[in-house]
Amino acid sequence: MTTPFDFSTIVNAGLQAPAVPWGGFPKYNFVGGNNDPESIPVEHLRAASDRLFTTKGKHLATYFVDSGPQGYLGLREYLVGKLAHYAAIECTPSDILLTSGSSQAMDLINTALVSKGDVVIVEESNYGGALSRFVRLGVEMVTVPVDEQGMQTDRLAESLAQLDSQGRKPKFIYTIPTVHNPTGSILTLERRQHLLELARQYDIAVYEDECYADLVWDGTRPPSLYALDNDARVVHIGTFSKTVAPALRVGYVVANWSMLGQLLAVKTDAGSGALEQMLLAEYCEEHFQPHVTALNRTLKGKLDCLTDALDREFGSAAHYVNPPGGIFLWVRLPAEVDTSALAVAAAQEGIAINPGVEWSHQMDNSHNWLRLCFANPDKATISEGVAKLAQVCHREFGVPVYGGNTPRE
Amino acid sequence: MTTPFDFSTIVNAGLQAPAVPWGGFPKYNFVGGNNDPESIPVEHLRAASDRLFTTKGKHLATYFVDSGPQGYLGLREYLVGKLAHYAAIECTPSDILLTSGSSQAMDLINTALVSKGDVVIVEESNYGGALSRFVRLGVEMVTVPVDEQGMQTDRLAESLAQLDSQGRKPKFIYTIPTVHNPTGSILTLERRQHLLELARQYDIAVYEDECYADLVWDGTRPPSLYALDNDARVVHIGTFSKTVAPALRVGYVVANWSMLGQLLAVKTDAGSGALEQMLLAEYCEEHFQPHVTALNRTLKGKLDCLTDALDREFGSAAHYVNPPGGIFLWVRLPAEVDTSALAVAAAQEGIAINPGVEWSHQMDNSHNWLRLCFANPDKATISEGVAKLAQVCHREFGVPVYGGNTPRE
Repeated sequence: MTTPFDFSTIVNAGLQAPAVPWGGFPKYNFVGGNNDPESIPVEHLRAASDRLFTTKGKHLATYFVDSGPQGYLGLREYLVGKLAHYAAIECTPSDILLTSGSSQAMDLINTALVSKGDVVIVEESNYGGALSRFVRLGVEMVTVPVDEQGMQTDRLAESLAQLDSQGRKPKFIYTIPTVHNPTGSILTLERRQHLLELARQYDIAVYEDECYADLVWDGTRPPSLYALDNDARVVHIGTFSKTVAPALRVGYVVANWSMLGQLLAVKTDAGSGALEQMLLAEYCEEHFQPHVTALNRTLKGKLDCLTDALDREFGSAAHYVNPPGGIFLWVRLPAEVDTSALAVAAAQEGIAINPGVEWSHQMDNSHNWLRLCFANPDKATISEGVAKLAQVCHREFGVPVYGGNTPRE
Repeated sequence: MTTPFDFSTIVNAGLQAPAVPWGGFPKYNFVGGNNDPESIPVEHLRAASDRLFTTKGKHLATYFVDSGPQGYLGLREYLVGKLAHYAAIECTPSDILLTSGSSQAMDLINTALVSKGDVVIVEESNYGGALSRFVRLGVEMVTVPVDEQGMQTDRLAESLAQLDSQGRKPKFIYTIPTVHNPTGSILTLERRQHLLELARQYDIAVYEDECYADLVWDGTRPPSLYALDNDARVVHIGTFSKTVAPALRVGYVVANWSMLGQLLAVKTDAGSGALEQMLLAEYCEEHFQPHVTALNRTLKGKLDCLTDALDREFGSAAHYVNPPGGIFLWVRLPAEVDTSALAVAAAQEGIAINPGVEWSHQMDNSHNWLRLCFANPDKATISEGVAKLAQVCHREFGVPVYGGNTPRE
């Protein structure tokens, strides 16, 4: 072969930096939305798959399995019931668009609604993937702090008033109200109503991301913003990735047709995977509820294991609020710890963590926060990983000073 | 509810027009890549699915099923063998990116390589979805005619020389060399070599779309451009939609890392559906080859049914070249027939066709061509649909004058 053609000489300007080949998962993997392998309902999924091939296999011969580009009707029908039961949402199958995970939903919504120079409202600590998308698109983010009751809507009111006084209108308020990423907090009913009041007052849209909302330890999920809204200004997204399996790429958008029709138009992939949609429809009707109840018990057990390990290994050096659900813990270390540098040093030891600067925007002291995902590693790996992380942190930053009641060397 | 919020007031400028709700498939559906329902290998897929849940179900707990963002390793390994066998391609799993159908592959390649004002070379008659994507992106298309031996590479040489004399360098040559859409022609080996020579001479990339290449009646598929190329300038895309099932969204890109790493970076969907990839890997190893052999027999039978019906109903008014494979027929009607108007009139009778203007760019007389897809309707529906189409055509345009040897009223 002569010198190979170098495509980097002809790619568009301003793209994401090229990827490097994947190196496998690290041993102590505290990042990503991966889930508990033992909780994958393998046998029920197998049986559901068996039934669907037998009864509906031939439908695979058409794009969209005879359901149109909004996705498999059977799953949209199931979602109508599920969303009514869990999130108090009243909708019909025609209000739902099935997507390839909520990641695609986010890309479609951004493609439809925002472009360079637009302003959006976001929570100060936030899902890294949402923030990086807005940064890439050149969107200006105005941040609102989050506490144990979710987004601080009094601060939202201030931000909206200030923008209004500048003659600037944000495209939407992006929020993760139920099991906020990364804090795990749940927006109270009062604040939900306050947020919607403000959205009405300034006539702006709300973009509600409820990807983790089924993972609440006590099983109670407040009415979603979509449900509380009375003028169809909320675009609601969700997913089955966090409850059934992340490798199944099935997310959804619920919105009024003025939004959904536009999202459909920019969705140029000839439909999302129908088999995964059909499988979920077949499986969820009977099994979703007991599965999620059991999954939440397992996840709570892993969270307890993580907080025990943090208490043991970091002691008072690690501050966190015990979340009411989810798959991650948001942890503050002493101010002298730079978690971005810690992440680099930890990676050398096979430990992956999310540094606070990647999971927040314009947040004071984000440099000493980190996010730890606990759903995927088993309990022994969680304990061992946290112990090793404490060693690395002590070596690099001198804290934590104590570990398991013993001064560190 | 008060007046619902109207998202159309806040969407970005320049987007595709919003979609209208899907109205179901028409009775006589001669459009789209839909396939023969009776040929879906339901029982073998069911058995494969059974095995994979039993042996690999827990892997669904992680994004990318432990295979990284390029997609399920087992399917990439299968593809290495399949592409070697059918298309003479030598590659490794690390040269392959699995996508959500070849539609996503096209969007990723366009995102990476082209922007407004760029020039690309395309075949004059072409896949409507490729053309509409380029139009939307503001890309200038320079067209090359196609005959029974595929793209006319002497005309390609002229176009490239002319662009060169204007100091303009196209981003790539986009071609469907094997079972060209819509003509069904297969690019000869001589022309493949000529095309690659020209690409080398002008140092431009080649974008090879082999989505239909497995559907060749006599089972012989020439070496792909990717295989014949010796300096890695070819980006090759393919799919399982046309051979196994369109509702499974599994396509792929084969390319060198300078391209693949960039495509991966712009692929922001957290992975394509793993279950469909795992299922295909499990199924294809044993069954792909006999399945496709049988499918081709079935498709050829439907094509014969279609050409018989055209001969019977349209007589000499319908001109076509009998294609060596595929799922569509490219048909020329008399010059007085405007197939765009025919499509509108036919839709009223439940008949869907692709008018020539949507399946070509800057082609003389495209207004009286049409594309008929024959894989999905059964034979009785094909015959009936063509008879009805002839009636509509006679009513609207006065041709065909005869039908079944009898003058039409």
